[in-house]
Amino acid sequence: MSTTSEEITDAQLVEIYQFAVDLGKKAGAKLMDGIHARIGGIISDISSNVATNASMTSNLAFEEKDNAVDIVTQVDEVERFIHEAISTKYPTHKFIGEETYAKSSSSAREYLITSEPTWCVDPLDGTVNYTHMFPMFCVSIAFIVGGKPVIGVIYAPMLNQLFSSCLGRGAWLNESTRLPLIRNTRGSISNDNKDNFGIPPMPDNAPGKCIFSCEWGKDRRNAPGGNLRKKINSFVNMAAEKGGENADGLRGMVHGVRSLGSATLDLAYTAMGSLDIWWEGGCWEWDVAAGVAILLEAGGLVTTANPPEDPDTAKIEDVRLGSRLYLAIRPAGPSATETGRQTQERAVREVWKRVKHLDYSRPGA
Amino acid sequence: MSTTSEEITDAQLVEIYQFAVDLGKKAGAKLMDGIHARIGGIISDISSNVATNASMTSNLAFEEKDNAVDIVTQVDEVERFIHEAISTKYPTHKFIGEETYAKSSSSAREYLITSEPTWCVDPLDGTVNYTHMFPMFCVSIAFIVGGKPVIGVIYAPMLNQLFSSCLGRGAWLNESTRLPLIRNTRGSISNDNKDNFGIPPMPDNAPGKCIFSCEWGKDRRNAPGGNLRKKINSFVNMAAEKGGENADGLRGMVHGVRSLGSATLDLAYTAMGSLDIWWEGGCWEWDVAAGVAILLEAGGLVTTANPPEDPDTAKIEDVRLGSRLYLAIRPAGPSATETGRQTQERAVREVWKRVKHLDYSRPGA
Repeated sequence: MSTTSEEITDAQLVEIYQFAVDLGKKAGAKLMDGIHARIGGIISDISSNVATNASMTSNLAFEEKDNAVDIVTQVDEVERFIHEAISTKYPTHKFIGEETYAKSSSSAREYLITSEPTWCVDPLDGTVNYTHMFPMFCVSIAFIVGGKPVIGVIYAPMLNQLFSSCLGRGAWLNESTRLPLIRNTRGSISNDNKDNFGIPPMPDNAPGKCIFSCEWGKDRRNAPGGNLRKKINSFVNMAAEKGGENADGLRGMVHGVRSLGSATLDLAYTAMGSLDIWWEGGCWEWDVAAGVAILLEAGGLVTTANPPEDPDTAKIEDVRLGSRLYLAIRPAGPSATETGRQTQERAVREVWKRVKHLDYSRPGA
Repeated sequence: MSTTSEEITDAQLVEIYQFAVDLGKKAGAKLMDGIHARIGGIISDISSNVATNASMTSNLAFEEKDNAVDIVTQVDEVERFIHEAISTKYPTHKFIGEETYAKSSSSAREYLITSEPTWCVDPLDGTVNYTHMFPMFCVSIAFIVGGKPVIGVIYAPMLNQLFSSCLGRGAWLNESTRLPLIRNTRGSISNDNKDNFGIPPMPDNAPGKCIFSCEWGKDRRNAPGGNLRKKINSFVNMAAEKGGENADGLRGMVHGVRSLGSATLDLAYTAMGSLDIWWEGGCWEWDVAAGVAILLEAGGLVTTANPPEDPDTAKIEDVRLGSRLYLAIRPAGPSATETGRQTQERAVREVWKRVKHLDYSRPGA
């Protein structure tokens, strides 16, 4: 027996949201345990009281090979913890986890999210950052109904930043600050606009003045026509306008380029308004489901990374979660002449004109 | 009357170090005041009790133009605070601050650091991140004697990470954890090696398996032969090995590429061991002085970004602080066949083979 989307009431959704936030905090704390175990040895044992016993050296895990094994084991445990908590509380809900999926026998990498209530979880996004103790890593938990992410929880414990959202209830930083953070001083606040007060439009000349976020990714086959070369060409087109009338190289260039090594946090920071544009191909639904929920609830736009034949007029479709192709625009308010959505759509079209078509196909997506 | 390097005793250096750490904390707190003033309005005023009085809207500053002015004013104040504290405590020391320097009448941008005891300060590195409330910003304070940075303090208040070092006393995270954080499980700990215990060598095939950090920067003149094109070509060479015997694109490619938007934090994270290699041209001494102090004290290597004529045999010179050309390698321990320094120098030579010669000249440097 499975629950369908119609059966989830508003009160149930709020309960599920609170459960998801609590679960995210606990899972993030488990990730931090791994960090503390590694640096704890350096703090207390090495710098003050030197000993050579085995219990101490076992705290200090960074040797390349051992460390990789340790991390995989630890991340498996975090996913199992999350899975068990969900199965106990909501036994009828489906569960898709990054670690479980990656180990499944299916070589086809099918898209498995249906219309049923489904949890989509990445116990650790930003694995390379985590092994290097670079703070840009997080746990990501999404609850999906009817194929759409309705609850998102992203917790980056080393940054002490918890991003969360529930459909119709806004997106939040650390449960207290409404997203996006960026706000204008213009206009006046009323009860009608208090949630969206002063959110700036996308810049007139976007992607000019924008912070552009992109990832070099793991797919490094440097074949002609391959995804890596297409990605790099796209980055360069975004960063520096080439030739044409504006050979001074100033027109349309972005204000900054960032690569954090975590697709999930790219989306979270786009929801904050810290990043204006994120463009990526190749990541998976567990990397983005919670981030998409949070960004949409904050007022952002998410569509496909791949430019259509006519970028000026093509319909801007909602993102398909399993498409592995994502273009995200931060929340935006109205300008003097456009609605917030119009400024976002203008930015989408300008990005599409500068980026290449990436090849990521997917059975079932 | 000026103090020369000979006149600073060890006891004085320790006192100066404590003063610098304290100053960094206070300056960072001032930067966070600006963040709290902006998001404070959203938390307490908008989401609960809506009002339209002027005192509230003045808290919400993000309109592009106003915001830029506000930020400059605020950063000036932080620099003035640091400058006054130093002048009061150490009236004979020289002071070079980013904001003061940028506003000086000198169009030559001369390098002004001499052999005298000098403070070199950037009140805010990562300005674009700060205006976007992206946490990768910091205050940077260096104390330089005889032209060499001997004390470094970098405080990233939104990350709650304080990096500090004093010549001969190690480099530290939050005053309690010895840098680098990355450590092996191999070997045994003794009093002789406790500070350097288990630091992994640079990888055998570096830059393979390395996290490479680079910044697209502000210099976007996209002229043929210009710095931007040379930078981008270098990034691509580091990320994806081209052609030759290993056309599969696997040889030598880095494990990850990161761009944080803060040169200072790039150096701090290299000292942590979170980033393995940082390569950059165009930034200034206040961007790097504290980071160089911390990285060197942690056991890292800093030299020039620009490849010599024979990268395989050229002497690896110490970095020149005013050169605007930097290549940093993380702290490294010995491998089975090499000293830690040898693994770092090998990495330097392999980077030099992949990067372009950048054009940044400087009177007096």
